[in-house]
Amino acid sequence: MFVVDDEPLSAPELNCLDAYWRAANYLSVGQIYLMGNPLLRQPLRPEDVKPRLLGHWGTTPGLNLLYAHLSRIVAQRGQDMIYVTGPGHGGPGLVANAWLEGTYSETYPRVSRDEPGMARLFNQFSFPGGIPSHVAPETPGSINEGGELGYSLSHAYGAVLDNPGLVAACVIGDGEAETGALAAAWHSNKFLDPVGDGAVLPILHLNGYKIDNPSILARIGDDELNALMFGYGHKAYLVEGSDPEAVHQMLAGTLDAVFDEIVDIQRAAREDGATDRPAWPMIVLRTPKGWTGPREVDGKLIEGTWRAHQVPIEGAREDSEHLSMLRDWLMSYRPEELFDADGAPVPAIVNWLPRGQARLSDNPHTNGGQTLRDLELPHFREYGVRAGETAEATKVLGAFLRDVLVANERYHNFRIVGPDETVSNRLSAVLSASDKVWQAAIEPEDEHLGRRGRVMEILSEHTCQGWLEGYLLTGRHGLFSCYEAFVHIVDSMVNQHAKWLKVIRHLPWRKPIPSLNYLLTSHAWRQDHNGFSHQDPGFIDHLVNKKAEVVRVYLPPDANTLLSVADHCLRSRNYINVIVAGKQPAPTWLDVDAAARHCGRGLGIWEWASNDDGDPDVILASAGDIPTVEVLAATDLLRRSLPQLRVRVVNVVDLMRLQPESEHPHGLSDSEFDAIFTTDRQVLFAYHGYPWLIHRLTYRRTNHSNIHVRGYKEEGTTTTPFDMLVLNDMDRFRLVIDVIDRVPGLSRRAATLRQRMVDKHAEHREYVQLTGEDLPEVRDWVWPAEGR
Amino acid sequence: MFVVDDEPLSAPELNCLDAYWRAANYLSVGQIYLMGNPLLRQPLRPEDVKPRLLGHWGTTPGLNLLYAHLSRIVAQRGQDMIYVTGPGHGGPGLVANAWLEGTYSETYPRVSRDEPGMARLFNQFSFPGGIPSHVAPETPGSINEGGELGYSLSHAYGAVLDNPGLVAACVIGDGEAETGALAAAWHSNKFLDPVGDGAVLPILHLNGYKIDNPSILARIGDDELNALMFGYGHKAYLVEGSDPEAVHQMLAGTLDAVFDEIVDIQRAAREDGATDRPAWPMIVLRTPKGWTGPREVDGKLIEGTWRAHQVPIEGAREDSEHLSMLRDWLMSYRPEELFDADGAPVPAIVNWLPRGQARLSDNPHTNGGQTLRDLELPHFREYGVRAGETAEATKVLGAFLRDVLVANERYHNFRIVGPDETVSNRLSAVLSASDKVWQAAIEPEDEHLGRRGRVMEILSEHTCQGWLEGYLLTGRHGLFSCYEAFVHIVDSMVNQHAKWLKVIRHLPWRKPIPSLNYLLTSHAWRQDHNGFSHQDPGFIDHLVNKKAEVVRVYLPPDANTLLSVADHCLRSRNYINVIVAGKQPAPTWLDVDAAARHCGRGLGIWEWASNDDGDPDVILASAGDIPTVEVLAATDLLRRSLPQLRVRVVNVVDLMRLQPESEHPHGLSDSEFDAIFTTDRQVLFAYHGYPWLIHRLTYRRTNHSNIHVRGYKEEGTTTTPFDMLVLNDMDRFRLVIDVIDRVPGLSRRAATLRQRMVDKHAEHREYVQLTGEDLPEVRDWVWPAEGR
Repeated sequence: MFVVDDEPLSAPELNCLDAYWRAANYLSVGQIYLMGNPLLRQPLRPEDVKPRLLGHWGTTPGLNLLYAHLSRIVAQRGQDMIYVTGPGHGGPGLVANAWLEGTYSETYPRVSRDEPGMARLFNQFSFPGGIPSHVAPETPGSINEGGELGYSLSHAYGAVLDNPGLVAACVIGDGEAETGALAAAWHSNKFLDPVGDGAVLPILHLNGYKIDNPSILARIGDDELNALMFGYGHKAYLVEGSDPEAVHQMLAGTLDAVFDEIVDIQRAAREDGATDRPAWPMIVLRTPKGWTGPREVDGKLIEGTWRAHQVPIEGAREDSEHLSMLRDWLMSYRPEELFDADGAPVPAIVNWLPRGQARLSDNPHTNGGQTLRDLELPHFREYGVRAGETAEATKVLGAFLRDVLVANERYHNFRIVGPDETVSNRLSAVLSASDKVWQAAIEPEDEHLGRRGRVMEILSEHTCQGWLEGYLLTGRHGLFSCYEAFVHIVDSMVNQHAKWLKVIRHLPWRKPIPSLNYLLTSHAWRQDHNGFSHQDPGFIDHLVNKKAEVVRVYLPPDANTLLSVADHCLRSRNYINVIVAGKQPAPTWLDVDAAARHCGRGLGIWEWASNDDGDPDVILASAGDIPTVEVLAATDLLRRSLPQLRVRVVNVVDLMRLQPESEHPHGLSDSEFDAIFTTDRQVLFAYHGYPWLIHRLTYRRTNHSNIHVRGYKEEGTTTTPFDMLVLNDMDRFRLVIDVIDRVPGLSRRAATLRQRMVDKHAEHREYVQLTGEDLPEVRDWVWPAEGR
Repeated sequence: MFVVDDEPLSAPELNCLDAYWRAANYLSVGQIYLMGNPLLRQPLRPEDVKPRLLGHWGTTPGLNLLYAHLSRIVAQRGQDMIYVTGPGHGGPGLVANAWLEGTYSETYPRVSRDEPGMARLFNQFSFPGGIPSHVAPETPGSINEGGELGYSLSHAYGAVLDNPGLVAACVIGDGEAETGALAAAWHSNKFLDPVGDGAVLPILHLNGYKIDNPSILARIGDDELNALMFGYGHKAYLVEGSDPEAVHQMLAGTLDAVFDEIVDIQRAAREDGATDRPAWPMIVLRTPKGWTGPREVDGKLIEGTWRAHQVPIEGAREDSEHLSMLRDWLMSYRPEELFDADGAPVPAIVNWLPRGQARLSDNPHTNGGQTLRDLELPHFREYGVRAGETAEATKVLGAFLRDVLVANERYHNFRIVGPDETVSNRLSAVLSASDKVWQAAIEPEDEHLGRRGRVMEILSEHTCQGWLEGYLLTGRHGLFSCYEAFVHIVDSMVNQHAKWLKVIRHLPWRKPIPSLNYLLTSHAWRQDHNGFSHQDPGFIDHLVNKKAEVVRVYLPPDANTLLSVADHCLRSRNYINVIVAGKQPAPTWLDVDAAARHCGRGLGIWEWASNDDGDPDVILASAGDIPTVEVLAATDLLRRSLPQLRVRVVNVVDLMRLQPESEHPHGLSDSEFDAIFTTDRQVLFAYHGYPWLIHRLTYRRTNHSNIHVRGYKEEGTTTTPFDMLVLNDMDRFRLVIDVIDRVPGLSRRAATLRQRMVDKHAEHREYVQLTGEDLPEVRDWVWPAEGR
């Protein structure tokens, strides 16, 4: 690893940096421990100490050290920079720095930059009614929740895309580095355009330990570590030590070198036209865990070990020796030199800091809603398909998305991400407007790869998700297209993003950001060649557990409704929108205007398919493209054979409409729901996903006991499309049987029809196993023209 | 990278290997394309070609090549070996090899090793009623579903743990290598004991492309790639080429070298006592995607590009030119030399293969249920806590698990995995019976680390899960202890495992394997210091969508019930068992015998807490440790203030008991359910997780409309334990209010009590925000002795 042994700091500079660092450390310890006497101007008493000691000290001094030094770079070079902290459980550190910079008090005036404010700063930390112990949405300057490890590096990359002047300094904890999401994200540098994008500076902070174990990367030796970083495409610099003065010099010198190198790389690409993929610099920082904290407590080493992870001195309220150790620890930062009579930081600490929005804690990119520009959206109606035509829904959407790319090209604010599936998901039209970005080697036979490009494909759902989150959080727009089954790979990431969105709704200073839009396709019902392993419609269930105010789920039944829904989602803010749509040729039920009206209502009666005259004998409802085909085919069979049966056909696009209005902002009122689903008629509901969800959404409705749901029940393998439906009991024949079995008082003709349906099942099974194809009558079925 | 340029194969050996490879390739193409005329002994007609062409050719020739060469190693060295194929979508290859080895016909006698059997082999592939297109449970010799990429390497490591004679050759696709799960798994070699464990031979197969894009690792250049492998702790060998003869020699020479090296490493550790972590060999294999397939179709390059990923020649039934290309392709393998008159492989192809269980497709480790030995379990009752005592449930369990480790030490068949949380989850007793295994550097201050050890901690839930799956699938036992919120990281992995378990239930030759046991602790209700980001009880919801026959969910309310549940789970087979339990000091409600009886029933009335005399006015039910405390505290309040109110207390340990018996094997009959929950009384249900799940499980019960559920609703941050309950409306005061609001005809005293509860809420909020602690009366509450 490269070692820089310049000593660039003058004595006064070094003193200022060190004083700043001591102040940040003091304030961090104060947050963990103190509920009174913040400046220790009185002797420390047990009652000054919080009764419950919560927080993470171990990583904090390292985060504070980096904050100080990165601020120096910002101030001296005017570098636009954000600071992404993977070990965000070091929350007290980031809060301390924001307070020192003044941002904290500007954001939360009660927490003023003086002694009473400092008291509040300490009190609120990890305290009921206060702030979380991790870096969180409440923390100015952050785009990364510190609670769940693994997402910092992909967030950092997402943030700098299309921000050519920006550097995201990204601290990666050595614990975090073991996670899958982080391990995959290192290769993001193969997708970073040195011309149009900014730079990420990964700083791998090896303090050696996790909660309870050494970390792997701290124990593999420098040769393997250096090789690993080189293998990831980086030039690694080492900063190592436990003597503050030496580390200050070494880190300052290294940062100078590294930022020079970033400038050189960008100049070469931007001015000299270099197209070789650069080896971007990164830093390995080895400092002790819990550095500057107590060295030993009760005969056990603390500093430099895993024991420094959380609260190094326990029981300081009860144990006078521990109390005095805590006092000594706090006083070791010499607070009397750091804060003036009012409790504000002295000028030497703050007068060299960046000002205004240059401050790391106030960088506008970290509050992306502030700088947000609406997407220019073409009129989606112009991409509509004629009703009755066969269309591949995602292919139709692809043309719209292509023109979204074109219309916003000059604003550099829209990206499409996906795990190697854009073409498989039939969005290939977008490739006529944009390359897939690729900085590794390009061969002559390659198609649509380029150094620039707004389509990003890596076979890591984690990295796709992280990039997009970083991009959205910094105020840009995007879409994640994914195989439905494998979006579960990011379940835990979407959890954290949903939590972020929930919290920022209650923080007026955090402006709304563009929604996280998923297009889930190649879905469970059409995994003809991949089979069982590729079938899982449960992401919807996962999301519906999140706060209703954050989650939207759409199941457009055809190409035109997909267009309308996509247009809506791309305009929305602060949501997680899930769109499930098919990619296979399928009927178009509604012309595009009718589609827009239908989507506007979210669900509705399809009069053209119904013959109920306002008083149905039975309601056939569907949500999802495949269930809609089956419901209409079943309706067709019923209306031909039992013309006196009054059938109402209902289609649901916006799944959340089914919930009571008390549960979800999109929920129908009970009277609206009853007008559609009645209070006493049988409802047969064919649903795209696991059937229980429909019960969950409707169990408070008057007619719930008459609602019967068919859906995916984990059956089926590599087989034909119709056979999938048969295996899961959601095919048209089964739906007809269901109707006949449920609706009382049907004629004898119904019994005949029922027998025919049973025979059809047998005929189908025989035919499909013989030919490998679906019955022609199933494949060729179309909604009768006279029925429209 | 190291290159071996021996040419170890004699001409006859090379001919045999190549003929075998051609045969496997022929059979692979046949499976994708043919439904008749399997040996092409008649001219190929359109109707010989399947109407729907499904399957993945691109990776298959590489998988077949490796199969041939690894079989040579097995045969020549008597090496015990399994073959794990990450790019398992190359299913036809693995099936073809199993057929050539004879295992396929032994397993599925209809698919005999002759022409009619070959015809069935081809017909069944990716065909309705046939077999999946990927490597799947149906495939002899596999422990890895080929559908979802990323898990091969951790599966391979799991398989060789405690199998010192075994080598898992693990092909990693270059697409798969981009996933997070795979990227994290490389560091598994820091946990592999060269003495007690076998070896993993990773083979990174760089065929250059994914479905639609080049792969990253194929485009970063050999210097970065080699450094990356070195950084992962490997010594990398390169095998590269597109000339079959040269590649055969190079691969054979390299495998000889690599297996020598594995033997050397193991000998050094086992005989010479070497303790340095070895640099295990791995192979980078660069061969063209779709090698030996059509070079060009319709003017587009196929072989060596992403276009070879699935079906290289489309429309062979309709297009006579394509049909003739297909014929030429098949004939290029010279089937007439490979199969005898009956259609069986000629002796030169098969007489050098390993025999019996030495065959890769018949290795007993891949059907772990065959070799399974039951765990020796200590009597869990001996670890019980006295009823009324305060205990940390997981700590009590830890003592039991410690003795499970001790009792089975000599059988080497039990492991505990977790992401750096064993001690945090209070299972530290296990560390007195076993080290945490660690092959990287060990420092003097480290505790409980050792070269050997049955506790495995890496900060990657993916890797923990993959190790454990590999361990279970090869017939051993284990437990995954995890923070509840972060188990979502493996949602998609558990999906695939659940699918595997579902399928093997219908394959009599696959013997039952030990269950996948999760201990979820550090749960949503006690994330006092980590807050919102660490709260998510939704894994249960995720699992409940899987097949009922596979899923079991337990919520033991105290230490003794946890012991009983854990004992049960460790004895079970073919399930996914989720146990949610607290780690904080909490009351013990039942003595251990009563606990065992209660767990045996799965749910029941707690008579000692009830005063309903068989005819309750209201039922207070709970599932989960924290809800149980609140339900009992609410019952105590109600019984003191409203002694005439008849309260029934019900506790649910086995959540699946709530479902109808038609839905889940554990489901209560309606009459049993009604006997406990009545058909007409109000039920207030306090549940550990998202409340809707209880409705989902009970919506078919007669009394469902009277069941009201409180649970986690995404509220709460860093705060006190009781405040978490208040914020989510599940505290005892709220439950009392619920009862008063729901139960008709209560006395005026109820109104007074209700007001007191409202006042208590206000008092609590004030107190907690002032002191940071819960109201003393809440903290100190105990179930009254006279009530027992």
